[in-house]
Amino acid sequence: LRRVLCTVLFMGALPSLAAVSQGHISVVLLGATGDLAKKYLWQGLFQLYMDQVSSGHSFTFHGAALTALEPGQRLMFDVLKKLACPPDEPPNRCAVLKDQFLKLSQYHQLKTAENYTALNREIEMLLRQEGLKEAGRIFYFSVPPFAYTEIARHINSSCRPPPGAWLRVVLEKPFGHDLESAQQLAAELTSFFREEEMYRVDHYLGKQAVAHILPFRDQNRRFLDPIWNRHHVERVEIVLKETVDAKGRTSFYEQYGVIRDVLQNHLTEALMFLTMELPANVSRAEEVLQCKLQAFQSLRGLEKNSAVLGQYQAYASQVREELQKAQDFISTTPTFAGVLIHSDNLRWEGVPFLLTSGKALDERVGYVRVLFKNRAYCTQSETLRDAGHSQCKAKQIIFYIGHGALNTPAVLVSRNLFRPVMPEGSWKEAVGQSDLHIFGQPLSDYYVYSPVKERDAYSVLISNIYHGRKDFFITTENLLASWGFWTPLLDSISHQPLRLYPGGVENQHLLDFEMVSGEVAFTLAEPVELLNPNRLMPSDYRTIESKFRQSPLVSAWSEDLISQLASDIEKMASQAVAHSGQFHLALSGGSSPVVLFQRLARHHYAFPWKHTHIWLVDERCVPLTDTESNFFSLHNHLLQSVRVPYFNVHPMPVHLNQRLCVEEDRGTELYAKEITALVANASFDLVLLGVGTDGHTASLFPHSENGLEGTQTVVLTESPVKPHQRMSLSLPLINKARQVFVLVLGKGKHDITTLLSRVGHAPRKWPISGVSPSSGQLVWYVDYEALLG
Amino acid sequence: LRRVLCTVLFMGALPSLAAVSQGHISVVLLGATGDLAKKYLWQGLFQLYMDQVSSGHSFTFHGAALTALEPGQRLMFDVLKKLACPPDEPPNRCAVLKDQFLKLSQYHQLKTAENYTALNREIEMLLRQEGLKEAGRIFYFSVPPFAYTEIARHINSSCRPPPGAWLRVVLEKPFGHDLESAQQLAAELTSFFREEEMYRVDHYLGKQAVAHILPFRDQNRRFLDPIWNRHHVERVEIVLKETVDAKGRTSFYEQYGVIRDVLQNHLTEALMFLTMELPANVSRAEEVLQCKLQAFQSLRGLEKNSAVLGQYQAYASQVREELQKAQDFISTTPTFAGVLIHSDNLRWEGVPFLLTSGKALDERVGYVRVLFKNRAYCTQSETLRDAGHSQCKAKQIIFYIGHGALNTPAVLVSRNLFRPVMPEGSWKEAVGQSDLHIFGQPLSDYYVYSPVKERDAYSVLISNIYHGRKDFFITTENLLASWGFWTPLLDSISHQPLRLYPGGVENQHLLDFEMVSGEVAFTLAEPVELLNPNRLMPSDYRTIESKFRQSPLVSAWSEDLISQLASDIEKMASQAVAHSGQFHLALSGGSSPVVLFQRLARHHYAFPWKHTHIWLVDERCVPLTDTESNFFSLHNHLLQSVRVPYFNVHPMPVHLNQRLCVEEDRGTELYAKEITALVANASFDLVLLGVGTDGHTASLFPHSENGLEGTQTVVLTESPVKPHQRMSLSLPLINKARQVFVLVLGKGKHDITTLLSRVGHAPRKWPISGVSPSSGQLVWYVDYEALLG
Repeated sequence: LRRVLCTVLFMGALPSLAAVSQGHISVVLLGATGDLAKKYLWQGLFQLYMDQVSSGHSFTFHGAALTALEPGQRLMFDVLKKLACPPDEPPNRCAVLKDQFLKLSQYHQLKTAENYTALNREIEMLLRQEGLKEAGRIFYFSVPPFAYTEIARHINSSCRPPPGAWLRVVLEKPFGHDLESAQQLAAELTSFFREEEMYRVDHYLGKQAVAHILPFRDQNRRFLDPIWNRHHVERVEIVLKETVDAKGRTSFYEQYGVIRDVLQNHLTEALMFLTMELPANVSRAEEVLQCKLQAFQSLRGLEKNSAVLGQYQAYASQVREELQKAQDFISTTPTFAGVLIHSDNLRWEGVPFLLTSGKALDERVGYVRVLFKNRAYCTQSETLRDAGHSQCKAKQIIFYIGHGALNTPAVLVSRNLFRPVMPEGSWKEAVGQSDLHIFGQPLSDYYVYSPVKERDAYSVLISNIYHGRKDFFITTENLLASWGFWTPLLDSISHQPLRLYPGGVENQHLLDFEMVSGEVAFTLAEPVELLNPNRLMPSDYRTIESKFRQSPLVSAWSEDLISQLASDIEKMASQAVAHSGQFHLALSGGSSPVVLFQRLARHHYAFPWKHTHIWLVDERCVPLTDTESNFFSLHNHLLQSVRVPYFNVHPMPVHLNQRLCVEEDRGTELYAKEITALVANASFDLVLLGVGTDGHTASLFPHSENGLEGTQTVVLTESPVKPHQRMSLSLPLINKARQVFVLVLGKGKHDITTLLSRVGHAPRKWPISGVSPSSGQLVWYVDYEALLG
Repeated sequence: LRRVLCTVLFMGALPSLAAVSQGHISVVLLGATGDLAKKYLWQGLFQLYMDQVSSGHSFTFHGAALTALEPGQRLMFDVLKKLACPPDEPPNRCAVLKDQFLKLSQYHQLKTAENYTALNREIEMLLRQEGLKEAGRIFYFSVPPFAYTEIARHINSSCRPPPGAWLRVVLEKPFGHDLESAQQLAAELTSFFREEEMYRVDHYLGKQAVAHILPFRDQNRRFLDPIWNRHHVERVEIVLKETVDAKGRTSFYEQYGVIRDVLQNHLTEALMFLTMELPANVSRAEEVLQCKLQAFQSLRGLEKNSAVLGQYQAYASQVREELQKAQDFISTTPTFAGVLIHSDNLRWEGVPFLLTSGKALDERVGYVRVLFKNRAYCTQSETLRDAGHSQCKAKQIIFYIGHGALNTPAVLVSRNLFRPVMPEGSWKEAVGQSDLHIFGQPLSDYYVYSPVKERDAYSVLISNIYHGRKDFFITTENLLASWGFWTPLLDSISHQPLRLYPGGVENQHLLDFEMVSGEVAFTLAEPVELLNPNRLMPSDYRTIESKFRQSPLVSAWSEDLISQLASDIEKMASQAVAHSGQFHLALSGGSSPVVLFQRLARHHYAFPWKHTHIWLVDERCVPLTDTESNFFSLHNHLLQSVRVPYFNVHPMPVHLNQRLCVEEDRGTELYAKEITALVANASFDLVLLGVGTDGHTASLFPHSENGLEGTQTVVLTESPVKPHQRMSLSLPLINKARQVFVLVLGKGKHDITTLLSRVGHAPRKWPISGVSPSSGQLVWYVDYEALLG
């Protein structure tokens, strides 16, 4: 090794040791013969060397792997010999530097604790021999995640540089596969390294177009400030499409799938750069991080229907072959996902962010596309408009990550928006290919900028590691916030059916999807070929009407049932309003009515809300703003979307004098009085009830002391489950209603439904059996799952 | 005349008198030699005759005008001789029928009462002579509106048919030039005719594409039901563009302008057909009318900034020339208007309806265009998508009224929407011109239907008059509803500056306009050339800021003041929410804040209502639903239009236990507790106050026993005026606020304003003088009228 450093000294073009006052940097690449190292990392390290050879730092490069010394050495030097000279580097200089780089590089077998101690000793010895000050050490983990902890322990115990020199460990994803595993891994790493020592790579942050999102927002504040919000942005698309499939990588892919592989990290980071509030100084990593974490907090939680998922047809057989699975093995790993994300802060409320990625698609391309609303009317007809800045043309800002039609990273801004400020040294205005169309518009409609020097993501990142620019890496907090956001979706879709797609151009419209009421669904109806072909479709069934417990029964698959019920309620409401000028509707809590509330809010525009009074059938003794409150759910899913006058909304007074359901506060009396004052004969036009698996209805539980009989109209009761205290309308009051609808949904209600079909009037045992309007009508709405099991 | 009818008898192809059992119809065309008659009406009557000659009715046609008999006769028959045979009529039959029609037509001078009596006598005589039963009489008013009353009086007194036969009078616009004149004209007509006798023509209702809007909605209910609403419709454009200018018609045009000429009637009718709820039976005129009237009620009121206005450059000189005006005459009549309309019902809330019309534009075209939102993401790249039904292409439904690129009436529906149901007899699928583009898409992207038989609007309308189909005409209620909607805009823009435009293709982007916060503005900045360069623009006045009672004073004309105040409140709200997550706003009652509430409701879409708590500064002891209640007014003008969560609304508890402000109910304590529980330090973010002429503020009156000092935060007080009992925040509580704004509007407040500018701190005499936030800021918003008298 002495010889190597001497060579440095003898090269006139290179700095003499005298100038090397900045100290020495040792780079250790763990997994030096692996795929990533071969493809990107050695090239990135060579680039670093070329860029920094005159920086005042001296370098040594240590490749490491489990392979024994000699074969390892051979493998590694085979890679190093193939290192390319970048086009912007004079060939002579590059050849000299490459030779140099090879001499500064060395292979180590790193397996045992002793190996690490030996490495440490070697580094120390070299520094001593050469009289060099140590600047720092970079350990680049290009190894599978199961090896992390062990390596981290060794580095921490044997390879730390002396005080005054820094340690930087570079980690490659996957960083866990859900929140829990990520937390665990993070906790382990934290026991070995300090936060500032860890550099978690998301190579998307090294993509030039992605890395420029924040600087772009910063440098164009004066144009973007007025329009970077929900009033002007129509939608945002963050997309990474691949043509390759997972062949040869299924052992990794089968465990992760597209959401963990691409969306949770790469696309989420791009999303954050777009949605986060802009810190005053975008180059201060800590400020950026705080804004990012805030942006994570504003994201609306994902649910099952926030995503559409697919799997290319050949995937399952690839998995069977590569992982030696049985012929009937079915994989539930998605290779395509489209996810709709909403941010609930004031800036972005209501703006759809669509994240899409998949393998075996029609083209390879990555982009972040911000589409603005068209707010203009152009009086001149299209054909007669001048070609220039018509406000009626689409307005977009696109961060083009690479590949695709443009085949270069780029930033595109519609000419009718503004001419962007771009940093002159690093981005240049591109000369357009006039016939090219990007997102429906000729390239000439955009200002187009591309990097002066196209740089590979890993070169960018390695340079940032060297410069200690932590804002290009994923901090622990950032990582956990992202997993915290994605894990609920991953959990809820783990048994979701996947749409199979043939792959490539053949996919046609099969993977197009649409937003409907805050959810997404594939545009084309389910094709014939399904993963679970035996599943029944709702549309195969029609609404059935017959009798249940001597009363009319409406039955259907739940979706159809809810739509029928909502229509029936609207019909009753219109009749009541036509008849008496008002409609008194008492609604139950629980989960079943939520879909009904949503249906009423979203599909019944003619509903006479202005003349409707909303009453509660029952309430939990919690503040109205508690998420457990029935009223809160009603407000969330219905009231906030329709226009019921404030005076017509009647939550139960469970929270008087800042305390919950205390008898002396006489909440029940108060509610009873309110009913008497406003509802003629205390006879509601419609009471909507549910049924519990124990036969309870409203908050009237079996053997309840209150409410099953007697003259009290509103009562306090005890629930067997938390929160125990409840307020409820009494059975006698319910039975005074003109109409009572009982809604029963889901398999879980099958047993009680069957039981109720057989038993008579026994309200003390099954309170629901006591519902029997004295002069009104009772109708049962029971879905097939509850009815047929 | 006997001879004429005999001729009918001798024509083998025509019905014999024996078959004429349906009775005789006399058609009287008043203004028989005028422009409209020449151009459309006689042709329409001839078409009626051709269509109905075998219907069982016999006809006579009476042209009438002020011209003496002989020249009038000559003029009229010159017109009749030129009547055209429609292409779908066999030439032989047409020639015979035309001959027939001429013989059945006669000219009358109708000037004096005697003339009318004579006409009546002639009709009666003919009927007697021929032994004909009278079916009815049609009087078509093709005369200037000032002649209406006189003619109506004569018809009513001398020309009514005998009992059993009907009278139909057909009226041509203009029907008044604002609400008042329309009401007056309607009242006069109503004194002569019954509603069912009047047929007010809007010839747009005879345009085949317009007339088909309702039937289309009806026949395509199953496709439209889910999408005909704010969730799916992005915008609607209702447009009538003309290339001609007003030359030769300025004597009419100068009085009316484009809004009265086109928007108030034609475009509004189309708007109604789109927005109204669909009655169960669209062919029942009464049901349609009721739905239309409801739709009018849902329209949000127009304001000055709801419209952009223009005038073509040559207009003023045309007016000067034709109306012999002085060289410095300036016309304020708009020849171009773009108006943004919103409907506030649940179906359409937030959807922009853009009505545009103008003369001297680049092309002649009329259309109604419904553009749907793009809710899809198409995974396949554009170039690789199949040409078919991609959901990512624009989705539109267009009722193409005529002219323009298509040059035929048509109904177009994007193929990715649905294949519409069209009545087979009357509409046919059109064969596309493949190279034609309509609204950015090739014609092949649409299902295109055009009428089997293209019919001129007047032929359609005359046929509908004959059939008594009143739904094709404008009823009095409909007319007045429309004027009621347009008149406030017409009033507010009467001195609005107009943008001058050169006319034709030269207009380029000069007339493009954009929507911003519920208003519209031209896209291009005001060009240098202005119509009234010397008139002061509101924007020339700047809001004045100085000091009042040692506190900052903002002063302006009331409209500007309110707009400034609203913006300041929004700014404070955003800051508070950014800082603490919530904004506590306490609002006063009274009339002054109403305009502020409206402004906040309609123009401040970015206001963080979701995080705002609304408190009352004071309340009258009346039920909250009483129109006297401050809360009721607040609800009416603000809360019902914005989305403040139910939990964040805090009316004062003046109505506990079904009684008003009884001390034992401890409402003041309750409110005080609520404030303490929710507002940090009981320090509101903003308290908005007013001032009474006696110097009271909140409900703290001079010499009040409660609330001027002491520890009580909420108090009961006595007002010198009814209702006497009040609840109010106390002065000490108000003075704890972070910010207090005092709003003073109108001449009536000038004296107290002057007085307050001179007196010191004397809250017992003038409670407002005690407002002095201990650590917050006080700002006065006083309009010029209050400040300067």
